[in-house]
Amino acid sequence: MLNFELKNPTKILFGKGQIARIAKELPKDAKILMLYGGGSIKKNGVYEQVVQALEGFQWQEFGGIPANPEYSVLLEALKVIKEEKITYLLAVGGGSVIDGVKFLSAAALYTGDSPWDILEKNMRTEEGAALPFATVLTLPATGSEMNSGSVISRAETGQKLSMGGPGLFPVFSILDPTVVASIPARQIANGVTDAFTHVLEQYVTYPVGAILQDRFAESVMQSLVEVAPKIMQNPADYEAAANFMWCCTMALNGLLSRGVPGDWAIHAIGHELTAQYHIDHARTLAIILPGHYTYNLEAKKEKLAQYGTRVWGITTGTIEEKAAAAIAKTEAFFNRLNIPTHLSEYTENYEGTAEKIAATFTERGWVALGEHRNLKPSDVEVIVKMRY
Amino acid sequence: MLNFELKNPTKILFGKGQIARIAKELPKDAKILMLYGGGSIKKNGVYEQVVQALEGFQWQEFGGIPANPEYSVLLEALKVIKEEKITYLLAVGGGSVIDGVKFLSAAALYTGDSPWDILEKNMRTEEGAALPFATVLTLPATGSEMNSGSVISRAETGQKLSMGGPGLFPVFSILDPTVVASIPARQIANGVTDAFTHVLEQYVTYPVGAILQDRFAESVMQSLVEVAPKIMQNPADYEAAANFMWCCTMALNGLLSRGVPGDWAIHAIGHELTAQYHIDHARTLAIILPGHYTYNLEAKKEKLAQYGTRVWGITTGTIEEKAAAAIAKTEAFFNRLNIPTHLSEYTENYEGTAEKIAATFTERGWVALGEHRNLKPSDVEVIVKMRY
Repeated sequence: MLNFELKNPTKILFGKGQIARIAKELPKDAKILMLYGGGSIKKNGVYEQVVQALEGFQWQEFGGIPANPEYSVLLEALKVIKEEKITYLLAVGGGSVIDGVKFLSAAALYTGDSPWDILEKNMRTEEGAALPFATVLTLPATGSEMNSGSVISRAETGQKLSMGGPGLFPVFSILDPTVVASIPARQIANGVTDAFTHVLEQYVTYPVGAILQDRFAESVMQSLVEVAPKIMQNPADYEAAANFMWCCTMALNGLLSRGVPGDWAIHAIGHELTAQYHIDHARTLAIILPGHYTYNLEAKKEKLAQYGTRVWGITTGTIEEKAAAAIAKTEAFFNRLNIPTHLSEYTENYEGTAEKIAATFTERGWVALGEHRNLKPSDVEVIVKMRY
Repeated sequence: MLNFELKNPTKILFGKGQIARIAKELPKDAKILMLYGGGSIKKNGVYEQVVQALEGFQWQEFGGIPANPEYSVLLEALKVIKEEKITYLLAVGGGSVIDGVKFLSAAALYTGDSPWDILEKNMRTEEGAALPFATVLTLPATGSEMNSGSVISRAETGQKLSMGGPGLFPVFSILDPTVVASIPARQIANGVTDAFTHVLEQYVTYPVGAILQDRFAESVMQSLVEVAPKIMQNPADYEAAANFMWCCTMALNGLLSRGVPGDWAIHAIGHELTAQYHIDHARTLAIILPGHYTYNLEAKKEKLAQYGTRVWGITTGTIEEKAAAAIAKTEAFFNRLNIPTHLSEYTENYEGTAEKIAATFTERGWVALGEHRNLKPSDVEVIVKMRY
């Protein structure tokens, strides 16, 4: 087991009817800005519940934060925050809204020239260096509701950069699984795939004797495998929805990654497919994952075989055969969620994609992906080609 | 899954060499009281490492906190804290020292007549209502290093009372697995048994569809089953020690209990055996557990069978047979740790114990143990008798 540090101060309020508790958790004298996305919260009753809970508080709203939260939109929200002397942010939405609010929380107290610095200079946001914020989660997937990371896009420059730091944990997050009932099947499938891949990125590396962490990671995956068909069939199944929601949060709240190496090459490559073809983030992961693991099977075979045995019940074959079978089981799992796993199923113009991504990585000087930081752009090119 | 709330702000610093980091985590202007137990930290090098880390700080020490931290001893420490205007406590030890420091942390800021009120009136210690404190864990077992609970004994009145609240989480805890190398086998066996039973008290109840919580609980038990023989054979096995330590912390830091019912009858009954015969806490749990589960098999059989299948690989038989086999496997596990599981193996004067404990419970008005709060003193009497 590697040495590690763990601190996660976010308060989770989980279950039916918890949205009303916002009223008890927010400071009475706060000047609140509630932020949300495209307006689905006005159709599923969440908006109304939040408005009810905010009765008696000083608050206003800012809607329209898009998926892959866009810097230019966030700058408009930042203007409101400064002009109105907002003291507390309330994100009502999925990972994009929450990530956007994390940026705003840091940007509101940033004293430098341009808030873009926070992203471009990869500045760590320390405790107390950001406005306090809370979240009401409406789309289980990214885990942003209980971690301190955020990814922001900027259309103008084609950049997608991340930020984080101990000052960016939500003060509290409301996780009410009844919101899952109104999520379209496509989004649920994306959420399962996103969370499942988050776990694998922290798990399919090399063994370091972290017996408990391995078991915890397998627990999240076993649970997702069990609830995915139920929730796809009936998103109003509360038990399945609750487990789905809690799995997504636990998949990326920092617990699974402590004491073990991390990979994250699938995310790095996947981001480029979103940039080029606007493919949903989770779907890019499903495309890249089988290629990445097959290409790097020798380095990852112990963990792949263990995953195959414990999560998919693969008990026969050599370690390489078990590893290969585990990859096949993973791809089939994504396919059962109606997620195509080949690039050609998303676009006819896939030729040249691998070379283009490799070239982009070379330009940026990103030549060291994976848990061993040994994957070069030429390796990425081969991996992407495997997934046409 | 039941509704739940979760917040755990303790910062964990885990691994080799982490004791030195105390210096970075403590406020420079703190007036520190370091507290410890019987002095084993002076033999295993921990005391020296802590003293080194405290160089340049204003600090003093208070040793001699006994197992089952005794109120009268803690009052002496409280006197020092008040006289010396201490602002920060540092617990260096196992669960008893840490529990004692939690009491002191609350008592130092308590403004009522007698600090015993905090325990007797079961007062909840809110955030900010206690002195900040940190811990250096030297004995994995109780999980006190990452939770906000404490149990204090008072010899004078024969009481053993608990306290807690959100103000009683350690600010940070240092978990260095190298300390395990010098722990006597008896204490390691106790630690494994204590942590294992903590998990079972939160798990062997009735199913509520908390799929992920069940898997997490099983993960801790599977890991303990795997590392226990290794750590018993060689406590200097770092990998085994690290997993043992992290399992003990995760067994009772609040994660496993969220969204599920809890039992805790084994602890309630076991405490009485400690009070009567001074049997080590963990060993009282090992004595009572098989009786409690056998007596309540009908109510607990689903979870017992699931535990048997997933942790012990029991795949044949009816649900009742699997449940019974799981109990037998658990007792055999404790026995393999050289922990006797019958009262007569600890004392010749066991006759009458069951009646005496039942009478004690009746006197106190404690007539509702277990997850259904339906176990009466007469049930407890039968359970204890089963374990002579």
